[in-house]
Amino acid sequence: MAPPLTDASRLCLHTMTTKPWTLAQCARRYADAGVKGVTVWRNALAGTGPAAAGQLLRDHGLTVVSLCRGGFFPAASAEGRERAIDENRRCVDEAAALGAPLVVLVCGSAQDQPLARSRGQIAEGIASVLPHAAAAGVRLAIEPLHPMYAADRSAVSTMGQARATCRQLASPWLGIAVDVYHTWWDDRLEGEIRACGREGTLFAFHVSDWRTPTVDLLEDRGLMGEGCIPIRQIRGWVEEAGFRGFVEVEIFSRRLWATDQAQYLADIKAAYLAHA
Amino acid sequence: MAPPLTDASRLCLHTMTTKPWTLAQCARRYADAGVKGVTVWRNALAGTGPAAAGQLLRDHGLTVVSLCRGGFFPAASAEGRERAIDENRRCVDEAAALGAPLVVLVCGSAQDQPLARSRGQIAEGIASVLPHAAAAGVRLAIEPLHPMYAADRSAVSTMGQARATCRQLASPWLGIAVDVYHTWWDDRLEGEIRACGREGTLFAFHVSDWRTPTVDLLEDRGLMGEGCIPIRQIRGWVEEAGFRGFVEVEIFSRRLWATDQAQYLADIKAAYLAHA
Repeated sequence: MAPPLTDASRLCLHTMTTKPWTLAQCARRYADAGVKGVTVWRNALAGTGPAAAGQLLRDHGLTVVSLCRGGFFPAASAEGRERAIDENRRCVDEAAALGAPLVVLVCGSAQDQPLARSRGQIAEGIASVLPHAAAAGVRLAIEPLHPMYAADRSAVSTMGQARATCRQLASPWLGIAVDVYHTWWDDRLEGEIRACGREGTLFAFHVSDWRTPTVDLLEDRGLMGEGCIPIRQIRGWVEEAGFRGFVEVEIFSRRLWATDQAQYLADIKAAYLAHA
Repeated sequence: MAPPLTDASRLCLHTMTTKPWTLAQCARRYADAGVKGVTVWRNALAGTGPAAAGQLLRDHGLTVVSLCRGGFFPAASAEGRERAIDENRRCVDEAAALGAPLVVLVCGSAQDQPLARSRGQIAEGIASVLPHAAAAGVRLAIEPLHPMYAADRSAVSTMGQARATCRQLASPWLGIAVDVYHTWWDDRLEGEIRACGREGTLFAFHVSDWRTPTVDLLEDRGLMGEGCIPIRQIRGWVEEAGFRGFVEVEIFSRRLWATDQAQYLADIKAAYLAHA
């Protein structure tokens, strides 16, 4: 079990966590709250553009941790797969302009074909984007998604699968984003995290909580402490495996988005110290 | 890929699939439709009692395939775990009175303790019930549930975990119920099914489909063909592993329960022939 976090120096927020706020609001409010890192969702760049967004965030003393999200590689048609690869190259360019060292990949899944084919297309898609990412100095992180998203969001459902793809492509620019929401149920999680540490692929760590009952598959995540995920234990595994990066709070919740976001930000910080 | 099913001789329905019907309605309607097997949910026994229910079903020419469901072993307190074990012994007695050779176990999960502890309590609970089950001539089948139920319904989320418990307890009365809804996303599924076949633990096979989007975690399953699960391929794996039992249709769907159940039963039969 990791010792509690005693300050916000490793706290990173995903802009999607406070979805009602503009990027400018996120920058000012996060900085005022002592948050040090920010992961930017691409929708938050609309209007501003990535370079100005990066400047704005740095002007507020924030470190840009990553850009969310690339991926969605599988498609039944070759044209569809090429479009996805092009889009991922654009995403890498945006990350470079933003000053984000990492793009998180939600790998995708095509319902009209077998999962195994989608998984192959994901590996091919990442392989096609990696040279562009390396040239731009931007790393890519496969985020294994909870198996409840296997049909439409990610055919990569486990750390084991993500790690197999990393070993196959063997690039220092490719690693894994470990999200407790997606992986907490997996009895192999501790060992997989340790293996990632040995292989140098632990690129990011995301936290939120699993609520019971969960009333929506997409937008009913919990604030840390509202659910049953052993977040601090998993953080301990990640840190024993050598990870020293930000602890990123990524919560999609219609319930929490409907509350006062300033109070919510204070609650996030308290929950981070108490439970992450 | 298995060849298509050409008749209903291996078709079994779960009473919960046509939840609006009483057991007597299920018996008459299933028999009229040429369905040969029935898996009885315990709620359907209210009023009738298991012995009379079994007689009623056999009088309609139906084979009682299993009783759903035992399980829910984990609890923080020793009293809670003892109560669960007692309840499972009663469930075995009901199965014996009903004439069901199998009890399906939804193993349970206690949110207020680590998953690993729940998993240990599940193995202990099953071990405590097995002598009673053997004496009654009733087999037990662990049903690995989809990881989205790990917090509250089953700390056993994969075939691999279920198989490890079967190996640990090493009883001819303990096996596994493979449900495509819970396991289709798992890249180890084919190998796990093959291993179950070698180990003699393939006790039951349940089918339904995964809809996209899935709007409810519990009651939005699809009729076979409405989703993306490669049901026939998985049936092929199960049969190559030696399984010759019923193909059990287990669909929880508020949407489908709200339709005319006689038409729905005809649709189930057609979907079974076309997609299972």
